[in-house]
Amino acid sequence: MGDNRQGPVYRSSTTAPVNIAVIKYWGKRDATLNLPTNSSLSVTLSQASLRTHTTASCSAHYAAHEGDSLLLNGSAEPIQHSPRTQACLGQLRSLRSSLEASDPSLPKLSGLPLHIVSTNNFPTAAGLASSAAGFAALVRSIADLYALPQSATELSRIARQGSGSACRSLMGGYVAWRAGSAADGSDSLADEVAPPAHWPQMRALVLVVSAAKKHLPSTAGMQVTVKTSSLFPTRADVVVPRRMQNMEQAIRARDFDAFARLTMQDSNGFHAVCLDSWPPIAYLNDVSRAAVRVVEAINQQSTDAGAGLLAAYTFDAGPNAVVYYLERDTERVAGVFRALLGNERVEGWEGSYGQDIKPAEMEELATLDEKAVETLRAGVSRVICTGVGGGPEKVDSHLVDERGEPVWE
Amino acid sequence: MGDNRQGPVYRSSTTAPVNIAVIKYWGKRDATLNLPTNSSLSVTLSQASLRTHTTASCSAHYAAHEGDSLLLNGSAEPIQHSPRTQACLGQLRSLRSSLEASDPSLPKLSGLPLHIVSTNNFPTAAGLASSAAGFAALVRSIADLYALPQSATELSRIARQGSGSACRSLMGGYVAWRAGSAADGSDSLADEVAPPAHWPQMRALVLVVSAAKKHLPSTAGMQVTVKTSSLFPTRADVVVPRRMQNMEQAIRARDFDAFARLTMQDSNGFHAVCLDSWPPIAYLNDVSRAAVRVVEAINQQSTDAGAGLLAAYTFDAGPNAVVYYLERDTERVAGVFRALLGNERVEGWEGSYGQDIKPAEMEELATLDEKAVETLRAGVSRVICTGVGGGPEKVDSHLVDERGEPVWE
Repeated sequence: MGDNRQGPVYRSSTTAPVNIAVIKYWGKRDATLNLPTNSSLSVTLSQASLRTHTTASCSAHYAAHEGDSLLLNGSAEPIQHSPRTQACLGQLRSLRSSLEASDPSLPKLSGLPLHIVSTNNFPTAAGLASSAAGFAALVRSIADLYALPQSATELSRIARQGSGSACRSLMGGYVAWRAGSAADGSDSLADEVAPPAHWPQMRALVLVVSAAKKHLPSTAGMQVTVKTSSLFPTRADVVVPRRMQNMEQAIRARDFDAFARLTMQDSNGFHAVCLDSWPPIAYLNDVSRAAVRVVEAINQQSTDAGAGLLAAYTFDAGPNAVVYYLERDTERVAGVFRALLGNERVEGWEGSYGQDIKPAEMEELATLDEKAVETLRAGVSRVICTGVGGGPEKVDSHLVDERGEPVWE
Repeated sequence: MGDNRQGPVYRSSTTAPVNIAVIKYWGKRDATLNLPTNSSLSVTLSQASLRTHTTASCSAHYAAHEGDSLLLNGSAEPIQHSPRTQACLGQLRSLRSSLEASDPSLPKLSGLPLHIVSTNNFPTAAGLASSAAGFAALVRSIADLYALPQSATELSRIARQGSGSACRSLMGGYVAWRAGSAADGSDSLADEVAPPAHWPQMRALVLVVSAAKKHLPSTAGMQVTVKTSSLFPTRADVVVPRRMQNMEQAIRARDFDAFARLTMQDSNGFHAVCLDSWPPIAYLNDVSRAAVRVVEAINQQSTDAGAGLLAAYTFDAGPNAVVYYLERDTERVAGVFRALLGNERVEGWEGSYGQDIKPAEMEELATLDEKAVETLRAGVSRVICTGVGGGPEKVDSHLVDERGEPVWE
């Protein structure tokens, strides 16, 4: 922390990961508190590939009348008008305030304006849900700045109110968000089902689709589904609770065949209730379906040979495909996509995960549907090669300098 | 009937219509008896556009050792190996046999071989469910040949065992197939919700999609769904019963807005449970979705102006779109498709329904998605212009001559 005339600048920085659900969050039972209609489960992705880097700072030197501020990827965000951000900041301040009350020697940070600076190492245009990593980094960095003693699970209650899926980005590995039943959301919390080291071989290939049009944002889409889909209550009340149990068991047993089947079934079931909504919601496009066909062909080769599933597709509220597979099957899964999409066609094959992906031999490709291959080549703009990773990490690299000014990376 | 050395040739001919469901039949609770998991409701389409013409004949002159025969569109069908056809023939013979037992003056037709000749006035390749019209014509023509006193509803029990949806083609207008609950299927019957004259303005435009690949046949597909879709029981047990009531009410009230919404919702819900099946079943393709987008644009213009829905899409187990609309909206619905698809691009705009469809003005087309228009133009191979029509009709035109020989039309 630095000194100047009006006092020191307190800083704390963190990086936080993206997560991609294998049991989807779709539907709120309380839109203000972001309480979900069903539990969900995700894989935290490595921060080597995708991460948000956030510095939280506070200082008496900051102009009190300007209040809190957030600079996101170089642009000032209007957080005064964001009830979600305000909820997070208010609850974190309140926890700090309690600390300060119990220990008068602590500096009175809760009363100081917060300046937060945040950057993503991936383009927002990639269509990846950056809000999960963003709110996880925001909550984690402020909790560190305030030296809060709360656990990641306790902080997940706060991050959830910023963005539902953010609560799952506070932990690494395989993370469950328990829907809970309390009206105040006190039991709607994330917990780590298994750390990354339990099943470190999990890999993910993200196929970023050059989307022609904007999709219905997920917050709006899920409320349409809750209100209008006649199949939705069965998904939320019956199907997902059973699938959560089976998925946790598959993860505990490192059973990729079961993990893959449940992942694909849940993605299909989620998009089924979207189609069943009124008006119907369609997030998948032709490129998404081409990715499904390639995954089905890869799995067919394996199951024809008496082995289990090798790959699992999953789709969030957009056309991007995420394909999970195990490291040992890198060439048979990611290698097929690399052979199809090549270095010249799309970028993203570099990095610690991508560089190991060797293009599959032509015989692996012989069974692929020609039309699907053509559609995929025309529609995938880049790939992201990654794998299961850890939770937020405290870092020394600050995006706010000692005088309280943003550092332009 | 004609005479020859071994006896007269008895003949009876009928035409029977195609029907397109607005509440879909998907799922059997008994695969042998063709008992459905839920009730369904369809519109019978005019035989001016689509019909099966069938002559049933029997004669002592026919070689007994060759048994019954069916000539369908000029090809001999192996009906000896079709349990479904055998079930229909057996039950019709049994009814005739009872008649003969009660009135000894009747000729003993039940003991004679049946020669049946049938033709469709539409190509099988059009992907229209010809089995419904086919089994309805088969049952109706034999019932007439045998002078059976049973009502169309009573005969629907027999036709259902040939092909589920055939039971709905025994009547005209708006027809419900009640699922029933008896294990022997005795209460799984069709009835006429309203005759064509109740709401004669109903029109249907069929967009025949040049399908690149074979689809999973509906009999196989529906069993995959019943066995694997976790959302399916809700559809069958909860959603469809409610929707049937609402649809019957919409038809009684001639409420097109409600009819259209329910039709589209049920088609979407049916394809949602297909997507939720394992492996997932996809009947809709890009051309189908382009048709959905055009219907949505047509409806948007209307609802933006404070009016109701003008058009309703529905899809069976394949990519063909059927678009329902009312006669008064011909130009605003069918006219849009005619303007897009033109005479040069696709055939089928002739005939009593098609000739009245004037291409819509360009301003109607301005809001259409360019990509959808392009996909539709590339993928629709022909259209069929039709409307609600009557049930099977007894006709004097026979496909078997007086000597028992097939007549080649």
